[in-house]
Amino acid sequence: MTLTGQSLIGAANVRGTNGAFHGVDARTGEALEPAFGGATQQDLERACALAESAFDAYRETSLEARAAFLETIGEQINAIGDALIERCMAETGLPRARIEGERGRTVGQLKLFAAVLRNGDFIDARVDPAQPERKPLPRVDLRLRNIALGPVAVFGASNFPLAFSVAGGDTASALAAGCPVIVKAHSAHPGTSELVGRAIQRAVQACGLPEGVFSMLFDGGLAIGQALVADHRIKAVGFTGSRAAGVALMKIANARPEPVPVYAEMSSINPVVLLPGALAARGAAIAQQFAASLTLGAGQFCTNPGLVLAVQGEALRTFEQAASAALANIGAATMLTPGIHANYCKGVERLAADPNVERLASGAQGGRFDAQAALFATTAEAFLAQPALRNEVFGPASLIVRCKDLGELHGVLKALEGQLTVALHLESADHEACRVLLPTLERKAGRILANGFGTGVEVAHAMVHGGPFPATTDARTTSVGSRAIERFLRPVSYQDLPDDLLPVALREGNPLGLTRRVDGVIHREGNRDD
Amino acid sequence: MTLTGQSLIGAANVRGTNGAFHGVDARTGEALEPAFGGATQQDLERACALAESAFDAYRETSLEARAAFLETIGEQINAIGDALIERCMAETGLPRARIEGERGRTVGQLKLFAAVLRNGDFIDARVDPAQPERKPLPRVDLRLRNIALGPVAVFGASNFPLAFSVAGGDTASALAAGCPVIVKAHSAHPGTSELVGRAIQRAVQACGLPEGVFSMLFDGGLAIGQALVADHRIKAVGFTGSRAAGVALMKIANARPEPVPVYAEMSSINPVVLLPGALAARGAAIAQQFAASLTLGAGQFCTNPGLVLAVQGEALRTFEQAASAALANIGAATMLTPGIHANYCKGVERLAADPNVERLASGAQGGRFDAQAALFATTAEAFLAQPALRNEVFGPASLIVRCKDLGELHGVLKALEGQLTVALHLESADHEACRVLLPTLERKAGRILANGFGTGVEVAHAMVHGGPFPATTDARTTSVGSRAIERFLRPVSYQDLPDDLLPVALREGNPLGLTRRVDGVIHREGNRDD
Repeated sequence: MTLTGQSLIGAANVRGTNGAFHGVDARTGEALEPAFGGATQQDLERACALAESAFDAYRETSLEARAAFLETIGEQINAIGDALIERCMAETGLPRARIEGERGRTVGQLKLFAAVLRNGDFIDARVDPAQPERKPLPRVDLRLRNIALGPVAVFGASNFPLAFSVAGGDTASALAAGCPVIVKAHSAHPGTSELVGRAIQRAVQACGLPEGVFSMLFDGGLAIGQALVADHRIKAVGFTGSRAAGVALMKIANARPEPVPVYAEMSSINPVVLLPGALAARGAAIAQQFAASLTLGAGQFCTNPGLVLAVQGEALRTFEQAASAALANIGAATMLTPGIHANYCKGVERLAADPNVERLASGAQGGRFDAQAALFATTAEAFLAQPALRNEVFGPASLIVRCKDLGELHGVLKALEGQLTVALHLESADHEACRVLLPTLERKAGRILANGFGTGVEVAHAMVHGGPFPATTDARTTSVGSRAIERFLRPVSYQDLPDDLLPVALREGNPLGLTRRVDGVIHREGNRDD
Repeated sequence: MTLTGQSLIGAANVRGTNGAFHGVDARTGEALEPAFGGATQQDLERACALAESAFDAYRETSLEARAAFLETIGEQINAIGDALIERCMAETGLPRARIEGERGRTVGQLKLFAAVLRNGDFIDARVDPAQPERKPLPRVDLRLRNIALGPVAVFGASNFPLAFSVAGGDTASALAAGCPVIVKAHSAHPGTSELVGRAIQRAVQACGLPEGVFSMLFDGGLAIGQALVADHRIKAVGFTGSRAAGVALMKIANARPEPVPVYAEMSSINPVVLLPGALAARGAAIAQQFAASLTLGAGQFCTNPGLVLAVQGEALRTFEQAASAALANIGAATMLTPGIHANYCKGVERLAADPNVERLASGAQGGRFDAQAALFATTAEAFLAQPALRNEVFGPASLIVRCKDLGELHGVLKALEGQLTVALHLESADHEACRVLLPTLERKAGRILANGFGTGVEVAHAMVHGGPFPATTDARTTSVGSRAIERFLRPVSYQDLPDDLLPVALREGNPLGLTRRVDGVIHREGNRDD
């Protein structure tokens, strides 16, 4: 599997002529071969035209055909073997075990959506039968199903080069919904992207699907991604990355003659609340787990614990000392890119330079592009007075906010922007205090967890990886778990259509055996006669 | 029930001091008493503060309590009696039967959402139980439910003074979801709004709910509505009205530090496709139904058939003659406001002045503010060349587009913007032609209907009153039917929370008896042991 540096335009591999860029070895900063050609506007035009022409056929493929397609993608990814792991390790600086685990997660995610397809509930098939005898007016026959939105643009994320990238959750859920996908590959891992993109390309061919179901464009700059979001054929956008980039894409999408949804997962500092009972009972143990969560993947998780809230006092001092000691013992780790490393260093310097912020600990030093973990503390008063302290520092840095009491702690929570996660550390004695905080936490975060940390996002049916702005641009959605498919669907109602013109999912006799809602009540057809 | 002209700020009735305006008798253009005081920014601030403080308590009221509240609103509306009907007739020019029917629809809608609440499926309760033995890592316990978004701003519509206004579908679905509502009353029917608003206010009190659950503000201008959408406590917006106003509100909401969804139902010309078999078999009969649909409610339905597509020829000429004759026999009807009447006249004049447009028929003339129906025809070529011909003319005007063949007709459909409805008139012989058109129709419209007209929107579980932009700002949603509640919900995931801290909907043993999804599969708890 020699890398070519070519964009994938449907079944064709096309060398982009709009400049070129290289992947970079995260450890050394040196360029990796080959050069990747930047896609041209013509490449983009061709990819969009193919996606548009594939859409109607692809969205009406059978549930089984799409499920098999997703599974084939997973098989093709596994078939790349170690070449994928090694290239990905080089481009991201992440260790083998992490990349192998992420590959398993990516393939598992594709399988989850295959199961979602075979289950079919996402179609939300509904039948309100006609009532010709109704007075004063007869009732028409109404049937509803969800259909795919249209071609979707997906932006690969730097921090999950497999699970949130070319064949990641956005792509898997959009393809499951019936949407062709055009990926703008992340320029931080172009080789990984090419390998995975070609796996999808092979799966499209193996499954006999229209070539426009998948394309992938390389670009070292911003122009192609922006043009993609602006293109009238793109009907939704999936993105994981920085707040600035996500908001920029949202603005482009909103300014279109036909605005379209942008699902951007952006910025979160993931508050950790240490309740008094838990802090007193096992502060040192929590500190160990905290240090491990903070430094996992060089602190480059969206759900990294960037903020710790607790009531000041002896127990918090114990926690701070234990966390500081633990951080000093954790080795430094390479960051994803030299640019991310530089930004991290700047963020840490800004905190260190703040007269209201105390530096509690620094992690071990390492290589040139390794992140040195950092732990800071401040008062609730200072934190509330300085909105800049609420900004995410992407990497293994965290800020402890010492609160006078639980009331002040609650006030800090209320002042926060939207979050992906909030973690509560609690004992039985803390339940009453938690009950007071929970309504605020529900309004702030997509996921609330007890006695754990947000790093580690289970791919499941009850997962929400989302949250109010700026955690995401759309708090009504999740980018992980089976509900992610809902982002790429819209309902269509059919009134009095002859049965043979209805979509199969809605025909009399329920030929697909779907769970349908009849007059608002869920049941499997046939059950009525059982 | 004397009208006071006061805004309703929670339980208080407050005379706005920011200018004043009157309702207007639609037939005569004369001012109706009393004057309505324009709400001040202080009034707005107070309403938002009350809604914010009511939110956490209100959203956790029991399903039964919210269902009873919605039913009480319906009872209170009915209890107003004839005073509501008469004021509404005066302010809108709509006839008694229509207003009485709309009141029934409004109360029915409240009952539908009471049933949706008692059913509980909208919570989407999900449980993925812990798997402590799972390798390599144990699985956490994850549970998910939908919660209310937060306080919602609702803008009453001029054309449905009851069903899409103060206690209309937006308010009913938002209140059902658990969102406090602040209505900006439509200045075209302030007296109707005050009567209905006070009915809701009484229901809040009768049900012992926090007063901030409902407020209503009057304003003769735009400032209060715009400030409402910009307020940080408002988390979603429901709107039915013009494209310009809906887009303006969307822009305000997108420009907020925390952007929020705007559900604006705006502009649709609702294409009617007359297929050759149907046109030949019963063109004259369809023409009668068309004329009735076009002039229903003085043509002021969102789903009014503003565009007719057919293949040119003898059968179409027969249809045109029959429709023209039918229109001439239908009496003129008063429009909602003098301003809407003036805009309608301008729109008709623009069409009449177009050299590529032929005027086929005019309806009967009537009073000063009555709409004179108008039927025009043009060629597909001219229609495709002039985008302005695709603009909605709000009122009983329609444009027939004569196509050379079905291919050209398909091209016209592809060139259209998003629509609320598309109507197909077909016979068995037309099914093949329909099959070719359907993929395009699904992409263009929220509802596809056969052998009928879009006017008449059933309040049902399988209804979609929505569609791609500019029919609405969010094609993923419907503003009519039980799925309308989804607009005001977002999912929250709970990980490893102790049972007594979980929301009741997610606790062990399923105390609410909800249909829950366990590991992705729907079932009622207890069924496993049956």
